[in-house]
Amino acid sequence: MRCFKATVEYDGTELHGFQYQVGQRTVQGDLESALAVLTGSEVRVHGAGRTDAGVHALGQVVGFRAETRIPIERIPAAMNSLLARDIRVVGAEEVDETFHARFSARSRTYVYVLLNREHPSAVFGRYCWHVAGALDVEAMAEGAHRLQGTRDFRAWANETREVESSVREVKRCVVRPVRGFVLVRVEANAFLRGMVRNIVGTLVQIGQGKRRPEEIDEITASLQRENAGPSAPAQGLCLVRVLY
Amino acid sequence: MRCFKATVEYDGTELHGFQYQVGQRTVQGDLESALAVLTGSEVRVHGAGRTDAGVHALGQVVGFRAETRIPIERIPAAMNSLLARDIRVVGAEEVDETFHARFSARSRTYVYVLLNREHPSAVFGRYCWHVAGALDVEAMAEGAHRLQGTRDFRAWANETREVESSVREVKRCVVRPVRGFVLVRVEANAFLRGMVRNIVGTLVQIGQGKRRPEEIDEITASLQRENAGPSAPAQGLCLVRVLY
Repeated sequence: MRCFKATVEYDGTELHGFQYQVGQRTVQGDLESALAVLTGSEVRVHGAGRTDAGVHALGQVVGFRAETRIPIERIPAAMNSLLARDIRVVGAEEVDETFHARFSARSRTYVYVLLNREHPSAVFGRYCWHVAGALDVEAMAEGAHRLQGTRDFRAWANETREVESSVREVKRCVVRPVRGFVLVRVEANAFLRGMVRNIVGTLVQIGQGKRRPEEIDEITASLQRENAGPSAPAQGLCLVRVLY
Repeated sequence: MRCFKATVEYDGTELHGFQYQVGQRTVQGDLESALAVLTGSEVRVHGAGRTDAGVHALGQVVGFRAETRIPIERIPAAMNSLLARDIRVVGAEEVDETFHARFSARSRTYVYVLLNREHPSAVFGRYCWHVAGALDVEAMAEGAHRLQGTRDFRAWANETREVESSVREVKRCVVRPVRGFVLVRVEANAFLRGMVRNIVGTLVQIGQGKRRPEEIDEITASLQRENAGPSAPAQGLCLVRVLY
């Protein structure tokens, strides 16, 4: 049995998230179908991050074990030939059997794209959240900075029942304006469900002057989801990198 | 009668180009339909550039005359409420009656996006041409530089029967690598049909070492379309700016 690590891009617009669901197109489902055709047997795919419906990825990492004679350098093209165009394997390597896409990952980085101008975009609309009206990017950056560190991030999660602990280490959380866009980049050892989108929804409220940056600390300390802001929509979010 | 100038974005993927065609979705057709609803009468829309099927725009400019009491600052939102999501009016102003979107334009700028890496992209695939294999970007830039100036660009056009002259002024033609992408930016007073895509197809051949940069001059001087390279696909092309 060979062990594989593959880097996967996807446009989440038409996908019901990473995780397999009966009767829905998902990244895991489509990858497993492609691998079943390629290897002639059932292959289970693990992902580094279980992205929600509508969320994109430029650097999702998956792991799987398979019996196949396809040389490693031909794995991406072989899989791509069986995948729809909104999912692309962009790299693959063989790893030892201790590798697990989810449990071996040291950090995940997400980028959230805000389009901050009066009118929505016809071209970038699939990949951003359109927020009209002025945003105080410096206040947002200060709020973001206050999220860095190792804390119980339960207040920022939609769901913590499935996890043993809601303590996470946010290694980096930065806000940067780029030509009419505002990018929020968050790197953590791991994320709780909905965490990035709840953070971004709250940072936007700070940018709009509806909250002060210091409230970030109060929200975190409260451990209560209802104290944080609303969730930012899925289509602005992209998993860009996973480190091992 | 009021005269309007509007800036329009579109994702060309599902569109059959700018120009009206019976039974097809086009930018002109959709804008004219929206304006007919908005004003209650037939409105003719002129565009600065007649982009081909599949070509995108971030800065197309259109002009039209209409009888309406809608205040100018509400025109974009009013039109957007009637347009499909892949076409967005992102600005509008009132102009005097001498304004013509096509004939008053002093220059158009197109950007062509090449994705230069081994595997295609799931996310950017709609907006780029995937070219695998090494590209000599410096040679491409030299070739691009040789296109600058006022010349008869007939050799670079698919069609010159409709125009009085095939002399154009290429004000700027530059090639720039950006994180795995190669961007070709071309500004001219006006373009002949297929001109940017034929230029890019030829520059890619130069990048691949199939042609020398100096051949650009020979192609231009020959005035023969068959001497230039193949046309680059539509989806990598975007009209980004029109100056008046």
